Amino acid sequence: MNWVERSQKYTLTDFASGFSISFAGMKFTEAQLSALSGKFERAAREMKLLEAGAIKNPDEQRKVTHFTDRATYPQSAEFREVEEFAARVRNEGKFDAVVVNGIGGSALGPQLMQFAVNGPYWNEMSREQRKNGLKIYFLDNTDSSGFADLLAVMAPERTLHLVISKSGGTQETRNNMVAMEDFYAARNLKFGDYAVAVTMQDSSLYKHAKESGYLKIFNMADSVGGRTSETAIVGHLPAALTGIDFKTFLSGACAMDEWTRSGDVAGNPAMMLASMWYIAGNGNGDRNMVIVPYSDRLVLLSRYLQQLVMESLGKELDLDGNVVHQGLNVFGNKGGTDAHAFIQQLNDGRDDFFATFIEVQQDAAKLPIENNTAMGDYLHGFFEGLCAALRNKGRQVITIRIPQITVFELGQIIALYERAVAIYAEFININAFHQPGVQAYKLAAKDALKLRETVLDTLKQHPEFSGTAAMLAELAGTPEAAVEVAGILDRAAVNGEYVNRTAANGSWIYSVK
Amino acid sequence: MNWVERSQKYTLTDFASGFSISFAGMKFTEAQLSALSGKFERAAREMKLLEAGAIKNPDEQRKVTHFTDRATYPQSAEFREVEEFAARVRNEGKFDAVVVNGIGGSALGPQLMQFAVNGPYWNEMSREQRKNGLKIYFLDNTDSSGFADLLAVMAPERTLHLVISKSGGTQETRNNMVAMEDFYAARNLKFGDYAVAVTMQDSSLYKHAKESGYLKIFNMADSVGGRTSETAIVGHLPAALTGIDFKTFLSGACAMDEWTRSGDVAGNPAMMLASMWYIAGNGNGDRNMVIVPYSDRLVLLSRYLQQLVMESLGKELDLDGNVVHQGLNVFGNKGGTDAHAFIQQLNDGRDDFFATFIEVQQDAAKLPIENNTAMGDYLHGFFEGLCAALRNKGRQVITIRIPQITVFELGQIIALYERAVAIYAEFININAFHQPGVQAYKLAAKDALKLRETVLDTLKQHPEFSGTAAMLAELAGTPEAAVEVAGILDRAAVNGEYVNRTAANGSWIYSVK
Repeated sequence: MNWVERSQKYTLTDFASGFSISFAGMKFTEAQLSALSGKFERAAREMKLLEAGAIKNPDEQRKVTHFTDRATYPQSAEFREVEEFAARVRNEGKFDAVVVNGIGGSALGPQLMQFAVNGPYWNEMSREQRKNGLKIYFLDNTDSSGFADLLAVMAPERTLHLVISKSGGTQETRNNMVAMEDFYAARNLKFGDYAVAVTMQDSSLYKHAKESGYLKIFNMADSVGGRTSETAIVGHLPAALTGIDFKTFLSGACAMDEWTRSGDVAGNPAMMLASMWYIAGNGNGDRNMVIVPYSDRLVLLSRYLQQLVMESLGKELDLDGNVVHQGLNVFGNKGGTDAHAFIQQLNDGRDDFFATFIEVQQDAAKLPIENNTAMGDYLHGFFEGLCAALRNKGRQVITIRIPQITVFELGQIIALYERAVAIYAEFININAFHQPGVQAYKLAAKDALKLRETVLDTLKQHPEFSGTAAMLAELAGTPEAAVEVAGILDRAAVNGEYVNRTAANGSWIYSVK
Repeated sequence: MNWVERSQKYTLTDFASGFSISFAGMKFTEAQLSALSGKFERAAREMKLLEAGAIKNPDEQRKVTHFTDRATYPQSAEFREVEEFAARVRNEGKFDAVVVNGIGGSALGPQLMQFAVNGPYWNEMSREQRKNGLKIYFLDNTDSSGFADLLAVMAPERTLHLVISKSGGTQETRNNMVAMEDFYAARNLKFGDYAVAVTMQDSSLYKHAKESGYLKIFNMADSVGGRTSETAIVGHLPAALTGIDFKTFLSGACAMDEWTRSGDVAGNPAMMLASMWYIAGNGNGDRNMVIVPYSDRLVLLSRYLQQLVMESLGKELDLDGNVVHQGLNVFGNKGGTDAHAFIQQLNDGRDDFFATFIEVQQDAAKLPIENNTAMGDYLHGFFEGLCAALRNKGRQVITIRIPQITVFELGQIIALYERAVAIYAEFININAFHQPGVQAYKLAAKDALKLRETVLDTLKQHPEFSGTAAMLAELAGTPEAAVEVAGILDRAAVNGEYVNRTAANGSWIYSVK
């Protein structure tokens, strides 16, 4: 088959929405596709079970309902409650900004949506430009600098706070909540009058929000994981507060869900997408997935998909308990900009990736440059040029084209990748819906905090101490932790707490203050 | 060696600045390091030649002077001119914002610096908070949506425009310039009164700026490549306009240059860093470099390093003309946030990476959470916890610790990676300073634009045309380009130009409007 025939055969188009995806630039054969028929059957069967409510996250004994919930959500009382709450907030005018306090899935989806729909300068627009939509900020870490930066521009009495944590136990989110409560208390403001919680019924956050008289508590479903929560309340509330039409977003997702439920593998974009990942990476993720949207508004898409794909597929064990160390690396930024950055390597360097290019066909503005050629035509030329250059070098490319980027297309894209991830997980026999690796890390972090207590106790007991970190570790009875003790002492010294440090003979010497 | 001994041996510290880097968490042996001795000698020799002014970019017959220029730049008349210009602009108060129009190296460095030093909400601060520093915006693509988004918040009469292009021929930058000139002209404003060019003497941009009466033209050195231009005028002018102390930034870079010139390989952080990349990736970049700064302010670092590393090292040919397809993938975001995203894969999934974690030891604010533990202590605990968890899984980690993140440390980090890249290029015998892969792409983009002309001509000649893209491609005499013709027609239809499209029998049918 030549390029035209191959494109004809392997381009899937939804004529209703104008969404199309082409796999023609990937290296695969019909024989390779046929060899996957057993996997296709399994994936189709398991996705049906999943959507019928089976336990598809066996570790956590949970159902996985994000694909199905969104079909009924717009008709629910919960949906109406969010819309009404958001409309009231926007119309009353008491609040002019919202702070989303959440991490991982509670931040990346809303960030992607805000940037894609409201653009990069939303917070700089006038309230009129925003049509009463709130400005939006994110606390998505436990970094005092992110917190301090926010305070520099936040008007406390005009700011609404969303605290989002499913279990309520997410330490980073809790930290920002505690620090913000302290900040409000110090100004004699009752934080509850400015706060809303999004959490599971009866979680620790739920109880805390009740006791503190939060304005509202919205319920989060146990069966929706963080990284797939953008089509649920986690996505809805920030969207509604900033005036985004969430119903249309869901209809985009549901349209893609419909399409990707198709039993016709060759016509099912999620089945085909997962197949490409599988064939290109030999079922082991041997090639990196490079995501390059040709759209300034979609610059956060790669970060969003990085979480969705890597947290879902990066697993040590398969469902039978075999050690498999699976995964699929995702990175990218935006085209054409990246052509002046890392694309040099894609063109010339290691052939260890497949690229996914996304074109937005509608120009946001008609900006003539010369002759008949407008700014958007150049972007298109760069898009086509890079696709062609890569193909000529034998590099692999998937192209997605959407007529414009509104919430509808965003819903399509997210739903497509969510399903491709779930299907690929079936291909490689893993649980896409848990994150066991995070546990080991949380435990180790607890140990690090415990060690800090030990160090501080030891300093208290030895007020005359002056010596190296190794000496203090010895005193503390943890000589094996000398390196980590140094890390604690260095931070203390830099922050002007507990110890001073000076350099001598190629070591830091710490002295109790 | 146990962990403590290994850390002792392979941690390099600059006691003057408090910068330290540890390679102890990487898997390598003394024997592997010794085996590199020939490469160390070559790199040391070549770096000396480079700094003495040899042609180190043979393809383009250019010297490479970014390491040396920055040592003398602060004493130069050019430096003073930039400082004086910026001080005048800031004090006069005519301008309240600056738009940086530049792509790749002309944008990523200034973006990184702004975010790291002035923080994420700089543009939302009052002029008083900004101490007369200008708000800053970037046009770093040829996307009409980025342009339109800027216009929504830009006050034309109070905005200064920097047009940055070394050759003047960068199409994306030229497009934004043309569109902005049109925008000003339509408002009867003379763009030259609001514009500054940064370019090489006598470039097309230079001539254009002269003719258009730009306020100022700053000279760009031929011997400084885009991706290493942050310590030159490209970094300086945006920094100075926003009140950033560029001299201190350069002193950080120069301090690192001094350190990394050391002939003692084991004590030279750039030699060691390049060695780690080499050993971990078998000299072929077989492992991805994952960059995780534990700092909200450094979230753009991975994107900056992605350009620096991948554009420099991603090469098809070595210096002897052998096909090598080299490269080194870089991605990342920020810790601890990423622990709730892709870190699951690093912990449990494919062992195909080495991570570089960066800790900022000083807390921007003291935010007590409980007992003696403040927000920053948690971030530290998460940092140490993740390092330990990864190590226990046999994953490889480099750690960098800096006391705080000011321009000085930013200069150190940039200079360290610049030199490690140059050294690694010597290890693998490639030219780190050209980007030949971009050429093929530019040519292909031109072809795409030419095809569009052909399509438009064909439509004009056949005003009754109605049919598929393949039919039009046939008419245009380019049947082999049917796919690309469809791309052009789709964009035209979506933008309401030239054609309408309707779906019939599984194809788009286009009709001349």
